[in-house]
Amino acid sequence: MVKGINLADHLDPTPRILMGPGPSNVNYRVYRAMMTPVIGYLDPQLLKCMDEISEMLRALFQTKNRVTLAISATGSAGMEASFVNFVEPGDTVIVGVNGFFAQRMTEVAERCGAKVIRVEEEWGKIVPPERLIKALQENPNAKICALVHGETSTGIKQPLEEVGEYCKKRDILFVVDAVTSLGGCELKVDEWGIDVCYSCTQKGLSVPPGLSPITVSPKAMDVLYSRKTKVQSFYLDLIKLEKYWGEERVYHHTAPASMLYALREGLRIIFEEGLEERFKRHEILSKRLRMELDQLGFKPFAQEGYRLPMLTSVILPSDVEDFPTRRRLLNEYRIEVGGGLGHLKGKIWRIGLMGETCQIQNIHALIAALKEILA
Amino acid sequence: MVKGINLADHLDPTPRILMGPGPSNVNYRVYRAMMTPVIGYLDPQLLKCMDEISEMLRALFQTKNRVTLAISATGSAGMEASFVNFVEPGDTVIVGVNGFFAQRMTEVAERCGAKVIRVEEEWGKIVPPERLIKALQENPNAKICALVHGETSTGIKQPLEEVGEYCKKRDILFVVDAVTSLGGCELKVDEWGIDVCYSCTQKGLSVPPGLSPITVSPKAMDVLYSRKTKVQSFYLDLIKLEKYWGEERVYHHTAPASMLYALREGLRIIFEEGLEERFKRHEILSKRLRMELDQLGFKPFAQEGYRLPMLTSVILPSDVEDFPTRRRLLNEYRIEVGGGLGHLKGKIWRIGLMGETCQIQNIHALIAALKEILA
Repeated sequence: MVKGINLADHLDPTPRILMGPGPSNVNYRVYRAMMTPVIGYLDPQLLKCMDEISEMLRALFQTKNRVTLAISATGSAGMEASFVNFVEPGDTVIVGVNGFFAQRMTEVAERCGAKVIRVEEEWGKIVPPERLIKALQENPNAKICALVHGETSTGIKQPLEEVGEYCKKRDILFVVDAVTSLGGCELKVDEWGIDVCYSCTQKGLSVPPGLSPITVSPKAMDVLYSRKTKVQSFYLDLIKLEKYWGEERVYHHTAPASMLYALREGLRIIFEEGLEERFKRHEILSKRLRMELDQLGFKPFAQEGYRLPMLTSVILPSDVEDFPTRRRLLNEYRIEVGGGLGHLKGKIWRIGLMGETCQIQNIHALIAALKEILA
Repeated sequence: MVKGINLADHLDPTPRILMGPGPSNVNYRVYRAMMTPVIGYLDPQLLKCMDEISEMLRALFQTKNRVTLAISATGSAGMEASFVNFVEPGDTVIVGVNGFFAQRMTEVAERCGAKVIRVEEEWGKIVPPERLIKALQENPNAKICALVHGETSTGIKQPLEEVGEYCKKRDILFVVDAVTSLGGCELKVDEWGIDVCYSCTQKGLSVPPGLSPITVSPKAMDVLYSRKTKVQSFYLDLIKLEKYWGEERVYHHTAPASMLYALREGLRIIFEEGLEERFKRHEILSKRLRMELDQLGFKPFAQEGYRLPMLTSVILPSDVEDFPTRRRLLNEYRIEVGGGLGHLKGKIWRIGLMGETCQIQNIHALIAALKEILA
């Protein structure tokens, strides 16, 4: 008997409609896949499963990058891997900063020893590509330019093409956070000149949190191979990860089999639907959600024309209390929506409509619940 | 349709009897727990689940350490967290090196900027405590002394008490790798003076791989809080992790809910059996396994008196081919056993008898299969 814990207690949390900034709801097929028996980390059957994941991730990222795999940790570790592998102490990194996760990028890069140059913009707006390109021109020694594609803290979808085009022609690595965007809207890694792109499993992919899909261009791998210092992280060392995921099959860590099974099934579901169909569904239903929210007095927060379909940020009407209302949604209606981060706390809500969650009946459930609460 | 992948394919790997160095077999209750609906990373129900995990981990580690949690990545990340949080560039770290994972410790510590002093011993033997204490005496500025409790590459169980006693009285942090030992044999973190102890989920706990339980003493947390430099890793920063797992509940990363459910259930199963009963089961059945293997000509590799009950290392008889025999065990009998690592490749086998796998019928199945193959 352990102090304070009744071992007879089963774990029976109330299921939620997950309309927050992630995780999103998980398809029952993904849960079922997690029941697949765990096998060894070098079992040929597991290696085949990993190969299939790589291949489907390539299709999802729209890339031919050989180094395309899932890091055995959450999206935050994907961010860390994207800097710790490519930054050497003293390197210059330019980051477009217009939200919580872009700020986190600067912190992660600084911990890796980077000299970080911030191109700041108001939260809720895009970082104008011309300002980024100007910063790159003014700092021709910059090694990395980093942007968040879908900023989870504000609901902004950052345009990437122009900056990618600029980096492609120079010795600059273009690092992109696709944590919220992957699987919910267009993301063309090769065409847009992205060198390193990481994401997570629990948002657009609708798989439980725990893995971080990542893809790395040959140009970025060359930079990695020509480092003067060792990558500080052993766990996130992409050369070692590539030797395990690639043909060599050198043991690096014990692959989280159950999570890999889940990711494989989540990816299968995505390709059964088709990327175009999936993106269209997110686009259409997010418009519907915005319209319904607008009628209840929740006005859009993110800059027009650059709104993420998977995450809608809205300004709270002055008569709506943030936390008590979200608590009622959770406790009485089993609906989770997200509050604001940082200085936006209490001011905005972030409503996710990602993957499995992106269904008309969930919009109806949320809007009806809000009408009852605010009546 | 994705190139080379038939989306109609279900994932149906042949189940295995996992008698390798890990993962071990998983109880069906743990799989069932993973079907529990994913909920948000700040959902009060998930936070309660995390509290229960912390409390059960404290009982398992036999510690009162407040900072006792599960890192959202595999055991290798636990190793990295144990060095990256406490090493500052130039610090001296003394590591007892008698196997593959102790070697990895030196690499991880060096990547963190440590000056590493190796106390080397032949693989398959313990590092004599007196040699470690002598090294500590000769290097009074050493900040950390690190040992692997259960060396997965050799089957050695390293004694910890004397070194712990020495470190306890001085400003030395005692870091212990309990990846293979936790849940299978006695491990007394507080009594033995261990400051940082990390493990994994997929061996003695019989939970799928993916998390790394860790416990950190107040003495170690003081060292962490008095660092002059920032912890290089954002993802593994224990101050940030403690703020999420502890009372403050500050968002750090999205907790891998399904894996936490699995860990909670695995821990429940352990405490239903009871620690003493569990350790006895491993002790008795590993003796039985050794006896049976001895009769087939597989002689023990690890030093007598210091053999891990959960992982038996044996020298291959000269007429037994390593890989073809293991392949037949896997393909014809569905039994996985581990080969040797490093210079022991082709020379020894490592046979796991951990948690759920530690059952008499599995020993019978392995021995009978070996008799057929070697007939």
